[in-house]
Amino acid sequence: MNRKILISPYGRALGVFTLFALMMINSSAALADEVTIGMSKEVAYILNSFMFLMCGVLVMWMAAGFAMLEAGFVRIHNTSVICLKNVALFAIAGMMYYLIGYNLMYVDVGDHGLFGTFNIFYEPNATELALMATDDENTAEIKAKTLQILAEEDYSTMSDWFFQMVFVATAASIVSGTVAERIRLRPFLIFVAVLSAFIYPIQGSWSWGEGWLNGIGFSDFAGSTIVHSVGGWAALTGAIILGPRVGKYGPNGEITPIKGSNMPLATIGTLILWMGWFGFNGGSVLAMNSTKAVTTMSVVFVNTNMAASAGCIAAMFYAIIVKGKPDLTYVLNGALAGLVSITAGPDVASPGTAMLIGAIGGVLCSMAIPMFDRLKIDDVVGALSVHLVCGIWGTLAVAIFMTGDFVAQITGIVAVAIFVSSTSAALWLFLKYSIGIRVHDEHERTGLDHPEVGTEAYAGFYYRSNTEEQDEDV
Amino acid sequence: MNRKILISPYGRALGVFTLFALMMINSSAALADEVTIGMSKEVAYILNSFMFLMCGVLVMWMAAGFAMLEAGFVRIHNTSVICLKNVALFAIAGMMYYLIGYNLMYVDVGDHGLFGTFNIFYEPNATELALMATDDENTAEIKAKTLQILAEEDYSTMSDWFFQMVFVATAASIVSGTVAERIRLRPFLIFVAVLSAFIYPIQGSWSWGEGWLNGIGFSDFAGSTIVHSVGGWAALTGAIILGPRVGKYGPNGEITPIKGSNMPLATIGTLILWMGWFGFNGGSVLAMNSTKAVTTMSVVFVNTNMAASAGCIAAMFYAIIVKGKPDLTYVLNGALAGLVSITAGPDVASPGTAMLIGAIGGVLCSMAIPMFDRLKIDDVVGALSVHLVCGIWGTLAVAIFMTGDFVAQITGIVAVAIFVSSTSAALWLFLKYSIGIRVHDEHERTGLDHPEVGTEAYAGFYYRSNTEEQDEDV
Amino acid sequence: MNRKILISPYGRALGVFTLFALMMINSSAALADEVTIGMSKEVAYILNSFMFLMCGVLVMWMAAGFAMLEAGFVRIHNTSVICLKNVALFAIAGMMYYLIGYNLMYVDVGDHGLFGTFNIFYEPNATELALMATDDENTAEIKAKTLQILAEEDYSTMSDWFFQMVFVATAASIVSGTVAERIRLRPFLIFVAVLSAFIYPIQGSWSWGEGWLNGIGFSDFAGSTIVHSVGGWAALTGAIILGPRVGKYGPNGEITPIKGSNMPLATIGTLILWMGWFGFNGGSVLAMNSTKAVTTMSVVFVNTNMAASAGCIAAMFYAIIVKGKPDLTYVLNGALAGLVSITAGPDVASPGTAMLIGAIGGVLCSMAIPMFDRLKIDDVVGALSVHLVCGIWGTLAVAIFMTGDFVAQITGIVAVAIFVSSTSAALWLFLKYSIGIRVHDEHERTGLDHPEVGTEAYAGFYYRSNTEEQDEDV
Repeated sequence: MNRKILISPYGRALGVFTLFALMMINSSAALADEVTIGMSKEVAYILNSFMFLMCGVLVMWMAAGFAMLEAGFVRIHNTSVICLKNVALFAIAGMMYYLIGYNLMYVDVGDHGLFGTFNIFYEPNATELALMATDDENTAEIKAKTLQILAEEDYSTMSDWFFQMVFVATAASIVSGTVAERIRLRPFLIFVAVLSAFIYPIQGSWSWGEGWLNGIGFSDFAGSTIVHSVGGWAALTGAIILGPRVGKYGPNGEITPIKGSNMPLATIGTLILWMGWFGFNGGSVLAMNSTKAVTTMSVVFVNTNMAASAGCIAAMFYAIIVKGKPDLTYVLNGALAGLVSITAGPDVASPGTAMLIGAIGGVLCSMAIPMFDRLKIDDVVGALSVHLVCGIWGTLAVAIFMTGDFVAQITGIVAVAIFVSSTSAALWLFLKYSIGIRVHDEHERTGLDHPEVGTEAYAGFYYRSNTEEQDEDV
Repeated sequence: MNRKILISPYGRALGVFTLFALMMINSSAALADEVTIGMSKEVAYILNSFMFLMCGVLVMWMAAGFAMLEAGFVRIHNTSVICLKNVALFAIAGMMYYLIGYNLMYVDVGDHGLFGTFNIFYEPNATELALMATDDENTAEIKAKTLQILAEEDYSTMSDWFFQMVFVATAASIVSGTVAERIRLRPFLIFVAVLSAFIYPIQGSWSWGEGWLNGIGFSDFAGSTIVHSVGGWAALTGAIILGPRVGKYGPNGEITPIKGSNMPLATIGTLILWMGWFGFNGGSVLAMNSTKAVTTMSVVFVNTNMAASAGCIAAMFYAIIVKGKPDLTYVLNGALAGLVSITAGPDVASPGTAMLIGAIGGVLCSMAIPMFDRLKIDDVVGALSVHLVCGIWGTLAVAIFMTGDFVAQITGIVAVAIFVSSTSAALWLFLKYSIGIRVHDEHERTGLDHPEVGTEAYAGFYYRSNTEEQDEDV
Repeated sequence: MNRKILISPYGRALGVFTLFALMMINSSAALADEVTIGMSKEVAYILNSFMFLMCGVLVMWMAAGFAMLEAGFVRIHNTSVICLKNVALFAIAGMMYYLIGYNLMYVDVGDHGLFGTFNIFYEPNATELALMATDDENTAEIKAKTLQILAEEDYSTMSDWFFQMVFVATAASIVSGTVAERIRLRPFLIFVAVLSAFIYPIQGSWSWGEGWLNGIGFSDFAGSTIVHSVGGWAALTGAIILGPRVGKYGPNGEITPIKGSNMPLATIGTLILWMGWFGFNGGSVLAMNSTKAVTTMSVVFVNTNMAASAGCIAAMFYAIIVKGKPDLTYVLNGALAGLVSITAGPDVASPGTAMLIGAIGGVLCSMAIPMFDRLKIDDVVGALSVHLVCGIWGTLAVAIFMTGDFVAQITGIVAVAIFVSSTSAALWLFLKYSIGIRVHDEHERTGLDHPEVGTEAYAGFYYRSNTEEQDEDV
């Protein structure tokens, strides 16, 4: 399933058919019960583009969701730095995608199917710019340019670009949560830049860019693999190469829980992500110019919600059974797990199936969190369990419950895993042995906010030092 | 005013009329000043459905508003549990509405007018699923299925379902604020499940489902009674059966103020609710396929804003006069009071009338808060004053200022009151004498977060214990 | 560039042309590749109105952005009062704009070009009200009223009003940040009322209301000058007349940094503003009924995002170079600086130019913050550097990088500066010498929350007193 050719040939060829059929009828009485389909190409162009913009804004909003989720899950002395990272990574991801990424992901991938073009900048096309610059009074010119655009495009190029751009930031956001509380700011932001410019777009070109994975039938509607597991693999390699936080794992296998400092922030972060996900999955229908498109979009909205709900409640029951209490962090991550799980196939599941997929995702995520701890892979916010584990699960679910092909799905999962893990690992190692990726132990103990960004997160409040907290826990 | 038949016959019969009339004209010069109305049935379907989805997202976002409002108004040690409740209730409400509620509220209520069908699951219909599954290349099939859908529907069934689903969560959210800080999690979530599956849908079927209240002319545009007072009555019975918090009311009638712990969260919660209310009231126009619909929607947006503004400022003045200072909690609740008050009739009020209705709501709410305290009914966030008192007021206001019928309005208010209060009370009592609804006094004193959910809300900060706080205040 | 006549004559005269041209063709085979433009007037009306409502909601949401940004940047004991101010100012701004402002800004400015009419109230017009009140069954009446409206209007009057109303609140929000932590509530709210009713609308009538500035070719697409610098000048005069906070500037020129108390709130505030800005700039296209309009809107979304990104990263580098660390407050203000900078010309810049404009804005803002401190102009949140400095910069950038005329741009900047500064100064002085504008020194030392609003912001937490904090810093 590719992401470029989004308007069905039906939209192109047949959209205006019935409208015309209607014209043959002369009696207005007869018209009263007439059912008409189709619309002018211009209305289709407007509806598609506006949908991209509105859904894109919802996805952009997820940047705030990740920022709050992570700010809630880190300790007090690391809060400013995680806030800064989340804002800066959204800015950098967009700029790198504009400079290099989009072309690499979507422009002329078809020839070999491995990546697009290496041009820099992606701009509105010349006809669009000319139309925008035309004086409103010059109706003949406007009409000519409009016809030219409508002959070639089904939506404004930059509305699509905007929608694609906000996706790359999501992938980058996943990384920041896992490697929080001990990574230095500079190498992290460099990693984000390379991820956004090269790693994410190249693997994205294979599927959404109409490359080789698309050719073999790999199906990932809104990015369980293409977005979420990409962020997950980049985060996993980072977590391994970076190592766990000081004091997290004891010499005899003890695991010290390190509590997040602000649960209401983590809660609003989760609800922001839930909200934004309607744009993430819903907008991935990639069109709104037909009954089929908007009917699908409605089902996608519902399935997205049901999977999140079921993931949340499944994780709550899991926590009650395993831990005796419905730990809030499990509930929040369970909702996100449900969301990631349904992302590969929200268009083909029924609401009931979506609930099942989401519930399994919620349980898998809850089981993965202690598993990563046993492996001494330190993931501050649980992003690996949410985005990597459930990203894989969701992609497989398309084959299990729906129309997806198992071989294609597994091929896609593995190919993305190999490519992203190897390139990410190489990049992390390069950064480690060049500028260094880890803060000083002393800085980690006292908190990163002062040494890394110089901004106290909660000035005026009394709070424990990081060390003091660890003393208590040990 | 029912909520199912949303497209006017005009939309069905006349929508394409003028388009055809135009076709008789041959001269393009003559066309220049021609005013055309109507659109194809497909465009109408798309506009209606997309409107439901966008407004539904705004209403879903209100879940975050309630979560933050309540997290701000409870004490530190009860913050995680209120966050968990608000996320879990949204998840549960949606699932129960899918399993049972929607059918009970909207499907075939007409026969007796008391409730709908007891089928489980509400799914996209077969034609929609068939259309979604049709290959994009198969244009003939797509056209046939599209015509079939457009002949029967004015919007995608699941877009409407999504919009209705987010409303039931609002009713449930109201309850959690009132009974906070002393209710156990499990009975609360069971209550939410029953409320969402049965209580809310059955009373909703009487009006929006085209039942008996609709028959007698009861008018409640977006749910002052049907949503807000329902939450209010459920909360009121809960508060009475549950009893007040330990230490709230002294033996000699003393009322101990118990301060909320995070005013910025309460503030963003209020502004989230204000934002979401544009979807709540605006989307309740239930159509966007005509000049009439979108003109009405615009007026609804404006009236919603003006009522909130006036409620906010009226409550501020009330607090200045009565308390000497413009207490922030009064200002926030005043804005919400204005919103609830206008919800029954935002389509028929003028902006000036909306301001008056909102201002009266703001004052009523401010007066009700101490009244409930004098009655020893302990409402942690003031939800009874906002949603119950102003829900009743707003429903009456339709008759006072606008076109509503007094008898019908009062009948609706009373019938909903009796039904919801009696069923809620029975359910609360059943829960009380089966699994128990109240936390141990000791847990209440030390805070619910540890015993109920096991998650500290603000780890690392220094803060008072609940007991210590009360000692100071007494 | 004015803001009233938003539908191009093309939209009016030619919109339905091609639709008709198509009707001449008889073969459906020939139709398959036909490109059609245009739509019925009714579809155009719906698209324009819905766009205003959706973008207006995003701009309304900016009220929460300012509230959280400012709540994060003030000290603990001043948090409730800044929350209250931001909610109340949004309420007051909307009511004053309804009572007086809109008419003064947009109705019949043309005659002299200095201001509009002094009528009170702005209401839906009579035909709209009549259409809304018509029974759905009365199709003939609905059709007649619809034709009447479509003959005269391109969008619902109240959809436009809603969109314009949320802009005035933005201007008012800017002031509250600068003068925080020492202004009394009452004079502040009176200032907001006059700003919203008179100062903002009168200067706005010169440009967007088709007044004299519009006549000379002044170009300010979404309000770098008309909204942001207006808030800036009002804030600047307020800051000067009010004086700096106690302890901010020492007798020998020492500048004492006073730290904000909640960086995550400042972060979510910034991201809310970033999100809302898509509505602010995007909706300022003022139409969505043509390929040109939606293509322009898409470019505006992208340019808005790129300028914010570049401003954020430029400010981060500036902070690293000058201060040695990427101060979070610089990064947040840098993003906002980029947003303000692009606001005057997001429709004519390319993404690359937008990045350049935003980056320069980010640096200018970072340089301005210490400059204002050296001038002993105390600006709590940096609003002068963001909104005034970058508002001017953005307006000039239209002439430097794009099609704007230098003389017209400078004339507009200066005229607005003189008018707003002089009227604001007069109003601040009047308030100062009548009811007084400054809190008692003692209240300032202990914090404004208790004396001004009587609501503790973070009850239960342990925190330093304002005085204690200052002692430490000195």
